[in-house]
Amino acid sequence: MTYLDNNTATKPSQTVILAMMPYFEEHYASPSCPHAMGQELLRPIEKALHAIYHLAGAKEDDLFVFTSSYSESITQVIHSVYEQVARQTGKTHFITSTIGDAATIYALSKLEEEGCALQMAKVSKEGYVPLDSIIEAITPRTCLISLPLASALTGVIQPVYDIAALCKERGILLHIDVTHALGKLLVDFAELGADYLTFNGEQLHAPKGTGGLFARKGTPLIPLIAGDGQETRFRGGPINVPLEIALGQACIEAEQSSTLYCSEVARLRDLFEERIIQQCPEASVLFKESERLPTTSAIAFYGIRSEALLYALSKKGVFATMGGGCEQHIERVVEASGIDHIIASCTLSFSLSKFTTEHDIEKAATIIGEAIVRLRKLSKTLL
Amino acid sequence: MTYLDNNTATKPSQTVILAMMPYFEEHYASPSCPHAMGQELLRPIEKALHAIYHLAGAKEDDLFVFTSSYSESITQVIHSVYEQVARQTGKTHFITSTIGDAATIYALSKLEEEGCALQMAKVSKEGYVPLDSIIEAITPRTCLISLPLASALTGVIQPVYDIAALCKERGILLHIDVTHALGKLLVDFAELGADYLTFNGEQLHAPKGTGGLFARKGTPLIPLIAGDGQETRFRGGPINVPLEIALGQACIEAEQSSTLYCSEVARLRDLFEERIIQQCPEASVLFKESERLPTTSAIAFYGIRSEALLYALSKKGVFATMGGGCEQHIERVVEASGIDHIIASCTLSFSLSKFTTEHDIEKAATIIGEAIVRLRKLSKTLL
Repeated sequence: MTYLDNNTATKPSQTVILAMMPYFEEHYASPSCPHAMGQELLRPIEKALHAIYHLAGAKEDDLFVFTSSYSESITQVIHSVYEQVARQTGKTHFITSTIGDAATIYALSKLEEEGCALQMAKVSKEGYVPLDSIIEAITPRTCLISLPLASALTGVIQPVYDIAALCKERGILLHIDVTHALGKLLVDFAELGADYLTFNGEQLHAPKGTGGLFARKGTPLIPLIAGDGQETRFRGGPINVPLEIALGQACIEAEQSSTLYCSEVARLRDLFEERIIQQCPEASVLFKESERLPTTSAIAFYGIRSEALLYALSKKGVFATMGGGCEQHIERVVEASGIDHIIASCTLSFSLSKFTTEHDIEKAATIIGEAIVRLRKLSKTLL
Repeated sequence: MTYLDNNTATKPSQTVILAMMPYFEEHYASPSCPHAMGQELLRPIEKALHAIYHLAGAKEDDLFVFTSSYSESITQVIHSVYEQVARQTGKTHFITSTIGDAATIYALSKLEEEGCALQMAKVSKEGYVPLDSIIEAITPRTCLISLPLASALTGVIQPVYDIAALCKERGILLHIDVTHALGKLLVDFAELGADYLTFNGEQLHAPKGTGGLFARKGTPLIPLIAGDGQETRFRGGPINVPLEIALGQACIEAEQSSTLYCSEVARLRDLFEERIIQQCPEASVLFKESERLPTTSAIAFYGIRSEALLYALSKKGVFATMGGGCEQHIERVVEASGIDHIIASCTLSFSLSKFTTEHDIEKAATIIGEAIVRLRKLSKTLL
């Protein structure tokens, strides 16, 4: 089996699992309890938080909320800005882009029912949202711009430093989701100039159920989930000790493997693209010239519908994605860059992780090559 | 160590942990993926859901949302009723009680900022909210009544069947949180007559991060977390496969151990109370004559402040609670029944689980007896 769907979910690392196990089995009390079994949890949680802050380049006085997913984190950011800015000031204009993830687009669309306006910034033919698109989209009533640092499906990196500078100048809040970039690129919340940073542990070899939200001190932030802890932790309800410990450990490991991503993983991704082109000369790597994540390839296989290829590969044990789920559909993301929809409908996204080997890549490329030959033959005969 | 704080958090059962492990280690893909590694997760999730529905006595067409905690579940219920009923119809009156948990009280208090009214129904001297209190609190604009089936701290069971009948008659929605009752009493959503049922797996020997929400078909329900899945699962974001599997397994086990709770655990709880009274004749078991959970004892130790006793016991390895965290403070819950605040401030809550042994009980009672003697001596000397 060759798993090339790491931007959807990664395999939790064995050491991450080992680190969290004692908090299922032994240290199961609630850290909100004043007794010893509760209090003994504070030190390990503090250690985990330290690692999370460190990986994200957050400062000590930045606020952090441990959430159950990036979807929850993103919803909380948008809820906070709506309640604390839009409703208070009448600045009810929001900007995002088609390349954003599902949570952002759903949450902002919901605000349209409340009289807010949502503007989708245009995407360049290189697959990113250029500064000009943002300038064009901004109105005097814009309160928040929400973008991913890198697209999950194409891997294209957004020019967020420029956008951050513009937001600062115009007094607009900026939210950047770094889910697909964290641990792969240098992410430094302080340097980035964003007001909110969200991410997901599932893409970082932590288990599912590990999300995070950073907010710069003084930025509007209110809880999404009510209950105990909503005033201090900005999230009501029990603290999920094992998952928070797991996320901390995953952040430590992500820091250790960050050079691996820009060297070995990048090499394997390039090798993968090279092999694919050798096997299927009609295929084309999209956005190859753009700044991209070292992990991700969006490849168009002209004449072969994505669904058919995804299914054929799945049967042979190679796993890729065409989006959907927590991400946009790849078709819409690719089309947003002005690429013909016939090409868009023939695109699959492949994503590697630090666990991907050269053997995986060679094997996957061969299987993809064979599948393409078979599907082409079939489509000539049958369609 | 004797852990008598099971209404705050339970030890996850070893078989629950074993059941979820393969979904951390091996089957880590996202079930929203159409490829084989995603699709192979559907059957085990379906099996887990079956067990969850079965334990709660839910019907096939009742809606279920897997959440990260009962706090999230409760927030979603209140958010849904506010958006879909209060804002649409002008019925903006909500009823709960001081014995409710933190999430309910926080979420409803927040609605007061939106022009809603929150009424706390009076608690009887037996520790429950009698039907008369509800009748007294209801107005023509009441849209939702939210109560726990049993109080976490006193264990007193609420007369929810009568309240449900009244709600049906008056066209008022009813939300019952069954966190502390599920697996200990027979909980049957269909028979209960409530519109919403919420619960937490952490009290059921499932890991933290496992919450649930049932809504009767046709009842107002909207997602709290945006994103993919919000339309089908009423919750955006990735599906937490390992935790959902864990909750399913915990529900199967809860079904198996339900008779244990009404026999052996109830016997141990009674034995515990008996031993405490033998050791400390001035102590008093609160609400002893009320219908209570078989697991829970609220005991007032006249003249000894709860904090002092909790701390002394913690040092000797006996863990109890005085509330706070996701629950109310025990002082407020006890005072709500008209009990003098001096007694209320000397009350601790103890909760057993199926893992509690007779040895635990005997040992805890002895340690409590010794601590009381020492604290009494100290307080006479020092205060």
